[in-house]
Amino acid sequence: MSLITLLTDFGTSDYYVGAMKGVILGICPDARIVDITHEIPPQDIQTAAFTLLAAYKSFPKGTIHVAVVDPGVGSDRKPILIQSRDYFFIAPDNGLLSFIAENEKETQVFHLTNEKYFNSPVSATFHGRDVFAPVAAQLACGVNPEELGKAINDFVRLQPLKPEIEGDNVSPSNLTEKMFERGFVVKIGEHEIGKLQNFYAEANAEGDIFIIEGSASFFEIVSFKDSAARLLGAKLLQEIAFVPKA
Amino acid sequence: MSLITLLTDFGTSDYYVGAMKGVILGICPDARIVDITHEIPPQDIQTAAFTLLAAYKSFPKGTIHVAVVDPGVGSDRKPILIQSRDYFFIAPDNGLLSFIAENEKETQVFHLTNEKYFNSPVSATFHGRDVFAPVAAQLACGVNPEELGKAINDFVRLQPLKPEIEGDNVSPSNLTEKMFERGFVVKIGEHEIGKLQNFYAEANAEGDIFIIEGSASFFEIVSFKDSAARLLGAKLLQEIAFVPKA
Amino acid sequence: MSLITLLTDFGTSDYYVGAMKGVILGICPDARIVDITHEIPPQDIQTAAFTLLAAYKSFPKGTIHVAVVDPGVGSDRKPILIQSRDYFFIAPDNGLLSFIAENEKETQVFHLTNEKYFNSPVSATFHGRDVFAPVAAQLACGVNPEELGKAINDFVRLQPLKPEIEGDNVSPSNLTEKMFERGFVVKIGEHEIGKLQNFYAEANAEGDIFIIEGSASFFEIVSFKDSAARLLGAKLLQEIAFVPKA
Repeated sequence: MSLITLLTDFGTSDYYVGAMKGVILGICPDARIVDITHEIPPQDIQTAAFTLLAAYKSFPKGTIHVAVVDPGVGSDRKPILIQSRDYFFIAPDNGLLSFIAENEKETQVFHLTNEKYFNSPVSATFHGRDVFAPVAAQLACGVNPEELGKAINDFVRLQPLKPEIEGDNVSPSNLTEKMFERGFVVKIGEHEIGKLQNFYAEANAEGDIFIIEGSASFFEIVSFKDSAARLLGAKLLQEIAFVPKA
Repeated sequence: MSLITLLTDFGTSDYYVGAMKGVILGICPDARIVDITHEIPPQDIQTAAFTLLAAYKSFPKGTIHVAVVDPGVGSDRKPILIQSRDYFFIAPDNGLLSFIAENEKETQVFHLTNEKYFNSPVSATFHGRDVFAPVAAQLACGVNPEELGKAINDFVRLQPLKPEIEGDNVSPSNLTEKMFERGFVVKIGEHEIGKLQNFYAEANAEGDIFIIEGSASFFEIVSFKDSAARLLGAKLLQEIAFVPKA
Repeated sequence: MSLITLLTDFGTSDYYVGAMKGVILGICPDARIVDITHEIPPQDIQTAAFTLLAAYKSFPKGTIHVAVVDPGVGSDRKPILIQSRDYFFIAPDNGLLSFIAENEKETQVFHLTNEKYFNSPVSATFHGRDVFAPVAAQLACGVNPEELGKAINDFVRLQPLKPEIEGDNVSPSNLTEKMFERGFVVKIGEHEIGKLQNFYAEANAEGDIFIIEGSASFFEIVSFKDSAARLLGAKLLQEIAFVPKA
């Protein structure tokens, strides 16, 4: 089986995702295709990279993950392929693959240069259909990464997702469940959040704010039947402090 | 063929549905997966149960229907499997399967206890990925219900969808097309609706309100090119009266 | 392989699309099904026809395209099948197939009259499930168009998508890139748009408005990281003028 996943910011009201699937099945009729999501906020590479990180390991080894959030489409940003021990990842070289690359072993990076495997002519606005989908389909049906492009050594990386913590000797390596037990709390603006719960239904009331180890193995600040982001006024890349309980 | 359907309140902007599919295909690569919907209102078990009821019979015999609307995830609510003569249903035991159970023949209920068939470790927040998807995939690839858990006698049931009607000797069994012909009307607040139409395009004007036998074989109060719920100020579980025409 | 695409205005929050897929797989278990979109604005045949036009050629020859935007469901509008050299198209006869018919070669049109191939009983409100899906599945699994209905000569057509231009001898056939180079501009209300770009990232600033040859090979008026429709106050079927630059 050749399994291909798709993750984009295309939405589902246009024909774009369907067109990518049509191209894939025209080249590799037996490929299986699974949508991760197409509702990444427009051009939000950070969210796309995080979502891919959270999802990719649920798929069997050999899966080809295609991610297209591509504000630079038509410019000279590279289309790349990262092959790891267990997976393939195809995306524009704009940081989208940087979180999975921190995570994966034995990675090799390829610049997808072999236009023989693109849709011809390549449009200036829709490389999802004309570059990424056909290359993924070729890979799914047996073409080697070496034939799709040339090996390169570097690619664009976003700032890592590692916590940077100062004061009280809190280093990333001890940001674990035990820290919360020892009386540390997360501070966001004036709010302190220190209650660690195992699951949502442990909450006492709607709007309770607490910390949970989410399904992607990150600690998450959440609210029971409400939005913690809204209640705390927090936003993407919100700065937080990790401090001893007041 | 092993066909698995998915019905959840996960939405499609996160990676959750994709992760469930990845898990299924990792266990049972030949399974076919069809989405019923992932836009059940958050934690709305009633709507999920009704939507499953409306959809499930359109699928071939042997289909495995997986429904995950699960406010109690992580608590001690049971994961269950109902096997009927024609279908399998997998869901948390919170009432989600009660309408199909009223409908199906030769049902057997199992409490899914065999953790050997779960994803390990089971997260506290995402049993869709860690319990329901892997069990469905095992079933699709040949594991028997008896091996997945133990037979039980009861499960959580919602209040049935049967009409309760008082006055004028209107019992549920005669709530048929003929009642409308004999001059009965549905009353919602001050509004009386008694016009029964065969299809939408019979209406005279936008905003016309009438009754139709919908595609799920329920009588539905609808409006032509508008929302009857909005026009009538009606809501989920709206009380209605069935009365002789004024 | 038998590939079936679906394009509807059903949305994805109800069970309708899932039910169509269940019916297809019950009749033709090996069919592959791809969604183009289900978010056509309700009953908007023009947008549906354009979206199908933009998408259909990305699919391999032999694909069966099913499009259901059907305000006349239950009335006497015909269900039709258009067979061209490369594709099959199944839809209500309301204009939905008129743009692809302008485009395709060797077309034959059939009125789908053979009720033997419908779901029985056919509901008055959901021909997607009861007529279009089963007929597509029968076709995918080998039934001939001639057996599904009878050949007809005409079908409903929308006004063609060709530009109608007056003044300055601008005829449709020379509405090409060269016109913009020669100093013509598009006028919408008081706005003149004459800048032709190859791709989005060429823009100087958010909100820049320019013209691009879109991925469906139409010229499109677009804005960088904003909505040209909103900025220009333009709407569906907006009248535009094509004039020498002021």
